[in-house]
Amino acid sequence: MHNDDNLKRMRTIEGHLRGIIRMMEEDAYCIDVIKQVQAVQGALNKVSEAILRDHLSSCVTTAIRGDDPGERTRVLEEITEVFAQSKKI
Amino acid sequence: MHNDDNLKRMRTIEGHLRGIIRMMEEDAYCIDVIKQVQAVQGALNKVSEAILRDHLSSCVTTAIRGDDPGERTRVLEEITEVFAQSKKI
Amino acid sequence: MHNDDNLKRMRTIEGHLRGIIRMMEEDAYCIDVIKQVQAVQGALNKVSEAILRDHLSSCVTTAIRGDDPGERTRVLEEITEVFAQSKKI
Amino acid sequence: MHNDDNLKRMRTIEGHLRGIIRMMEEDAYCIDVIKQVQAVQGALNKVSEAILRDHLSSCVTTAIRGDDPGERTRVLEEITEVFAQSKKI
Repeated sequence: MHNDDNLKRMRTIEGHLRGIIRMMEEDAYCIDVIKQVQAVQGALNKVSEAILRDHLSSCVTTAIRGDDPGERTRVLEEITEVFAQSKKI
Repeated sequence: MHNDDNLKRMRTIEGHLRGIIRMMEEDAYCIDVIKQVQAVQGALNKVSEAILRDHLSSCVTTAIRGDDPGERTRVLEEITEVFAQSKKI
Repeated sequence: MHNDDNLKRMRTIEGHLRGIIRMMEEDAYCIDVIKQVQAVQGALNKVSEAILRDHLSSCVTTAIRGDDPGERTRVLEEITEVFAQSKKI
Repeated sequence: MHNDDNLKRMRTIEGHLRGIIRMMEEDAYCIDVIKQVQAVQGALNKVSEAILRDHLSSCVTTAIRGDDPGERTRVLEEITEVFAQSKKI
């Protein structure tokens, strides 16, 4: 389900985060730290988008084409939840 | 497609926005204006969520259960786009 | 405090919002409505930024250069709050 | 400048991120991964807020109470930029 591209991106983000921790340990300028944190958040958004795209074309499509109405409702409600939550963070 | 609840919410938001314009005309405190603008944005998010929920259970479900693979891809890609865009505003 | 540019922008946004309400009344495609709502939110962000910029160079600067430490703390705490809230909407 | 609390939070976030990578390696459900990514983003927001709060009461206050108008403008412009950017990620 989780393709190698997304895993690679996540490992890059982990490295980026460790770099920010080093910046903080070396007392880097606050605004530079905040900008790097924002860059990490932007990169995380791209991973979420890619995972959502895969999810829609696999699990969600299977559920909606399937015969279980409860399952259909469930997968669609999850999409709305994730969309709603994406703006509260 | 667009139910009355969403329309009612949008008209309430329009009234809220007019109230903010009046606050600005009367030289209200900047931070109070910004907080009201944020309240309007929060209310707009709730409308977007409700529209998306309706869209998923109607158009998207119809397309995915339908026989046109191009249409399926199109509706799913739109969801990913809207999700991606929601974080850039 | 609130300059004419910001007021003009807010009136444009009000017109945009009324246009979206009309789109909904005429049963426009859900995704088109959501995209217009996102455009309004982007425009509101620009107004908030402009108001914040004015606020920092006027009220906040006056308070910080003033002699009241409580007032200094208060204006700075408001900035942090507005920043925190901006991500929760 | 960067207090121990923020560093500790960042190290916790790094651990959380590594946990998400493991979830992905073990093929966890997409929506569960996205929710954990959103939790990391929420935690990063809290760190940004805390860094901004410290920055306002230290560097920004010093600059605004100082005698260099260019420096005053610079620190305030940085705050507006960070605020603007926070909504585009």
